[in-house]
Formats: sequence, structure tokens, C-alpha cells
Amino acid sequence: MTKPRPKARSRSAAASAQAFSHEVSLDHLREQIDCIDQQLVNLLAQRRRVVEQVTAVKKQHDLPTFHPAREENLISARRAQASQAGLDPDYVEDLFRTVMRHSRVGQLNTLSRRSVRPGAKVLIVGGLGRMGGFFTDWLRQSDYDVRVLDRDDWPQVRSLAAGIDLCLLAVPIDVSPSVASQIGPHLPSACVLADITSLKRKPLEAMLKAHAGPVVGLHPLFGPATVTMDKQIVVVSPGRDPDRCQWLLDQLSLWGNVLVETPPAEHDEIMGIVQALRHFATFVFGQFLQERGVPIPRTLELSSPIYRLELAMVGRLFAQDPSLYAEIVFATPERLALLKDYLQSVQRNLSLVERGDKAEFIARFHKIADWFGPFSEQAMRESTFLVEKLVHRF
Amino acid sequence: MTKPRPKARSRSAAASAQAFSHEVSLDHLREQIDCIDQQLVNLLAQRRRVVEQVTAVKKQHDLPTFHPAREENLISARRAQASQAGLDPDYVEDLFRTVMRHSRVGQLNTLSRRSVRPGAKVLIVGGLGRMGGFFTDWLRQSDYDVRVLDRDDWPQVRSLAAGIDLCLLAVPIDVSPSVASQIGPHLPSACVLADITSLKRKPLEAMLKAHAGPVVGLHPLFGPATVTMDKQIVVVSPGRDPDRCQWLLDQLSLWGNVLVETPPAEHDEIMGIVQALRHFATFVFGQFLQERGVPIPRTLELSSPIYRLELAMVGRLFAQDPSLYAEIVFATPERLALLKDYLQSVQRNLSLVERGDKAEFIARFHKIADWFGPFSEQAMRESTFLVEKLVHRF
Repeated sequence: MTKPRPKARSRSAAASAQAFSHEVSLDHLREQIDCIDQQLVNLLAQRRRVVEQVTAVKKQHDLPTFHPAREENLISARRAQASQAGLDPDYVEDLFRTVMRHSRVGQLNTLSRRSVRPGAKVLIVGGLGRMGGFFTDWLRQSDYDVRVLDRDDWPQVRSLAAGIDLCLLAVPIDVSPSVASQIGPHLPSACVLADITSLKRKPLEAMLKAHAGPVVGLHPLFGPATVTMDKQIVVVSPGRDPDRCQWLLDQLSLWGNVLVETPPAEHDEIMGIVQALRHFATFVFGQFLQERGVPIPRTLELSSPIYRLELAMVGRLFAQDPSLYAEIVFATPERLALLKDYLQSVQRNLSLVERGDKAEFIARFHKIADWFGPFSEQAMRESTFLVEKLVHRF
Repeated sequence: MTKPRPKARSRSAAASAQAFSHEVSLDHLREQIDCIDQQLVNLLAQRRRVVEQVTAVKKQHDLPTFHPAREENLISARRAQASQAGLDPDYVEDLFRTVMRHSRVGQLNTLSRRSVRPGAKVLIVGGLGRMGGFFTDWLRQSDYDVRVLDRDDWPQVRSLAAGIDLCLLAVPIDVSPSVASQIGPHLPSACVLADITSLKRKPLEAMLKAHAGPVVGLHPLFGPATVTMDKQIVVVSPGRDPDRCQWLLDQLSLWGNVLVETPPAEHDEIMGIVQALRHFATFVFGQFLQERGVPIPRTLELSSPIYRLELAMVGRLFAQDPSLYAEIVFATPERLALLKDYLQSVQRNLSLVERGDKAEFIARFHKIADWFGPFSEQAMRESTFLVEKLVHRF
């Protein structure tokens, strides 16, 4: 691989010989590394084939994909082996978490497209929307008999709703309650009525009023671009007759979703902050950058990885659907009140800066840090881990 | 491994036999996986030993740690092999990026603690502070002769400054200019005067005024908790006589830092947004959560990974030194003006929500998205990649 060097480089013969000798030894070592790396990929491929066999057995015997204890045992064994071999156990754990995640997602994609109630009839109201389409696909691939009712299909509502086992509302927040009242009278009495609105109190009230059978409110905390349901959270607000709604929740679990049960009022309050306030604040920051014409590429060059990450969180908002964000921010009078409180909080803290009151800033800082408690250390660890990933990836 | 099952479980003999048979086959497959995983760790340890030999050769012949082209070739080769073996090339690339990063950091830790000017005398002003201590350690480990001047050492300033090649100011933003004027008269004329203040215009002016020799302003975009300098950014604002400052920049590069040259005014303007405004906004959000007593653990249970990440960015601020953040936020009148503009921006956007003007919100959204251009798609990709990491790690 080492080419003879042209004389023009004006090295002494000795230096040249030395350079040649260390290049030869580097080339030789690099060949060894390449050979090891090839073997690593071969082993990964071999592992993949064995995992496929595991998946086949699990599928045949209807066994669950996850085996958390097995995963943790596996990690512990590899960490111990790493330590003995003089490797950093965190490094080895990091690699194996990636390997296992990949294997789990692969298994899930094969195993989870099953139905807990094969052939059950499902009507998706708003099935032409992005989230509606998403659930239509997943249900169809899992052997459900799925029909879609969108805006223009109301004349056919009676035939579409005939004999259905589940009616899933996938419509915008602001029309969700009225759509519930419209569809209610057409549902068979044993049919489950559920929605996936990102607000829960009003839609659930409307569903309970419109339908006397089983009712459950859902809020999937992911968007339609999600390719795997693995560990994605779905908030569940029970409405009526949970036993008869259970199969729907079992289906979500089978897909890999993690279900978190929450009363509708608590859900709406927390989402006010998690969604409405965060999205609003992110929107304002994006607009501020645009108004001032801040040079993004130059800013990124002059940014620590943490700021790159913050800016990525802002940028990603604007790669998404504005009407969804508008719906969330404009949803309720409570949300407007929350945003007003936030504005006052900005004002109060700004007047601190205006007065040059560093001491009070520091006192407040300590108070907040105490209040966050162990979370801030955890946050530091998590974000530092991610920043590491960001630095070596991009 | 499979134990005989007690009769009490009341399975039929046939079902029990079937269960037994698939457990045997699963156990067998899992043993195969464990065996493959053991071989993977063995190969990683083997790889590590070869990399150590590479490092030794590089050290002996003063060769650079990085070889970006080699890294990219290696990735391409593994991706190609992965595709042929039916593996997802992104998955394999992800693993090898982690492997290479680990190998690079290991090499850097061995190779980078060298001096480009062994034995040169360095005075760290503010060497007892956290960043001062950080640079003291790195310089000492790289064979520099380091002295420290902190608040109580001014009576010894003449002897401490005698014959030094570099004077590095590592003091708080607000005293940086006055410390520069104090130390200036004591410096040998050929000594490089540099600072690591996170503001550049005023400290650089003060250094140029206080010292007639070589001057350079630095802003390392990382904190004292950093364990590796690998790819960490240092902003460089040249002052005077860059040729004679070059060895200091070469030292930073040898440690693994990436240097970005920036005029002081541009630096300060961008940092107003990247640091002052972001830190202020994050502080306000943290305080808002504390004032309202938002239940953090419950909120995390009800959060998508993206919000978890956002909350981690807030939490991490409060795990850090408040006085550093106070300094940054309160640094200049320009920063106060910036924060006031920001407040107005929050107000204007809030009045939009108050009027219920969704259409205007969406119009602004589109305008901002256009302005961000390709960055928002990139941000989506980067943050989605990180969210994946977050989901499978925590």
C-alpha cells in the first residue's frame, strides 16, 4: 500500500527509511483492525440470524418479544467480561444497548403485527388525516377489518358503522367533541368508542355522552412519522366499562407501546406545560431568530454541542405540521391563562436583569436547583450522554 | 436450565410438553447468542490492543491522531459488508462510530498530553477557579512549567511573571479587563497574553492596551467537567502578532480542540443569543416549573422522548454553577437590550393567541420554516437520532 516517495520531498535517506518502516507497521496494524472489523460484522450478521430463529419460535408459541430480565443479565455479563478484558464497561454496554435495541425492533416488526382480536371490525373517523392513516395502516397490517370515515363519507355512516367493534376518532382537537356526538348514535352498543386527541377532558365527556357502551380516551405521544411503536408512550384516560376496552389496550401493548393511565384533568394540565407552553416558547424563539436574521450556519460553527442540540429542538418544530401546533397552543382558555402567567414570569425575571440584581438571580437559581433535586444531576448525565452521541455522529 | 414444572399449574400433558420443547429451543438459541456476544467482546478487546500499538507507533513518530479519510473508508467498507450480509448499514455504521470514537478518545488521551513547546513557562491568572484549574492540569500534564496567580498572590506577581512565555487569564467576565491592565506591566515583551473569557470585545481591548506583545482572545465552548478535548470548539479572536501566538493554538489543536476564528464583535453578538438569551430562557422556564410546583416525575412519565430531552436541557442548567450563568446573562447592556427584545417577541406572539388568530400563527410558522430552510430537516434528523438513543438508553 505504501508507494515509493518522490525525491522532491527532500528527506534524508535515513529519515525516509524510518518513515517507510513506520508506515509499513501502521499499514500492517490497520490491516489487522480491518480484519477484526470484518469479523465483527460477520458476528453481527450471525447474531441476527439466531435472533430471527428466536423470533420464529416466539411467533409460533405466541410469546412476548420483551424479556427485560434477560436483557439486563446479558448486559451485566458483557460488562463483567469487558472489565476483565481491560475494556471500559460503559463503552461495551453502550454498544450492546444498540445491538439489543436493533434486535428488539426487528423482532417487534415481525411479532407485533398481530391482532389480539383478529378480524375485528374497526372504523377510523378521520382516517385520511396523518394520524388516522397511521392507525389505519397498523390495524390493517395486524389483521383487523378497517373502514375509514372521513369528511365526505357521512352519508354512508350507517353502513360503515354497522357491526363494528371499535370506533377510533382521529380528528383535530377542536372538532373532536362534535364528531363524537355525531357518530355516537350510529354505534352498536358493545362497540368501543375511543379517541386519540391530544386533549382528554372535553373529548372524553363528549364520547361518554354520545355513546352508552365502552369508552376510553387515548393520547399517543408520538407522531405519524414513527416507524416503531417500541416503548412509545400512550396516555390512557378510562371512560366507561374498562373490561370491554381492555382488548384495545392489549393491542397497543402488543405493538410495543407503554400505557400510562391518567385521569383526563391531570392529563390536560400536564400537557398544557409539556405541549402548549413548550411549543409556544419554541415557536417564539424560532421567530425571534428569524426576525433578527441570526445567521444559523455561523451560529452552529460557534456553538457547543449542547447549544447545537437546543437549536435542533427549535429547528425540528418547523419541519412539522403548523396546524397541529396551532391546535395545541390555541386549544383551551386554560392554556391561554398559562401562557399569560409565563409571560409575567419572563417579565419578572427580566426586571431582575434590568436592576442588575445578580445576588437575587443566584438565590433563585439555588432555590430552583433544590426544587429540581436529583433530577438536575440525572438531566446532566442524560444530556451529556446525548451530546457525546451528537459530537461523534454529526 | 428448564426446571420441571409443578403439577399445580394444571396444564395438560401435551401443552406442558410443547412448552418444554420451545423453552429448550429458546434456551439453546439464547446460548448461541451469548456465545456470539462473548466473541464480540473478545474481538473488541483484540481491537483495542491493536489500536494501542497504533498509538505507540504514532507517539514514537509524532504522527497525528486523526485520520478522517481512513475513518470514512472504514465506515464505507463496513456499510458495504453490512448490506451484503443483509444487515441495516445505518445500524452497523452507528456501532462503528461508537467504536471509533472510543478508539480516538483513547488515542487522544495518550497522544495529546504532549507539549508543542516543552518546558515553556505559563502563568495562569485565576488558576484556582474551575476553568483555571482545568487548564492548569492539562498544561502540567503536557510538560509545561505552570505557575498559578490567584487573588492572594498579587504581592508575588513580579517573581511569578518573570520569564513566562504565556499568561492565560481565567477570571470572571466582569473583572477580566481590569485584571488584564493589572498584569500587563509585569509581562516579558515576548510573552503571549491570552484570556478564556466568554466575552471577547472588552477583554481583548484591555489586553491589547495592557501589553505590547502578542495577544490572542480565546473562548473555549466547554466546561471544566469535560474529560476529553476531542472535537471541542475553541473560538479564537486574534489580537496582535498571530505568528508568535501560533504555538498556543497548535497546542489546543494537538489536544483535539477545533479552532474557529471569529472577530470579537461577531463573537459577542452570537454569544448574546447562544449563551445569554438561551440561558435566560432556560432559567425562566425552570423557575416557572418551580413556582407552579409542576410534578417533574409524573410529567416525565407523561412525556414523549423529545420533551424528556427538553426537560433534561432545563434540568442540567441547574446542576451547574449559578455565578457563571449570572455573569453571562448580566454581562453587557447589549445583552439586556436583547432580552428586552425577546420579551416583546413573547408578548406579540401571546397577543396572537389571545386574539385566537390561528391563521396568522400558521402564516408566521411557514415564514419561519422557510427562513430556517434545510436546517429544520437536518434538525429533525439529528434530534430524532438522539431521541432513539435516549429511548433505548434510559
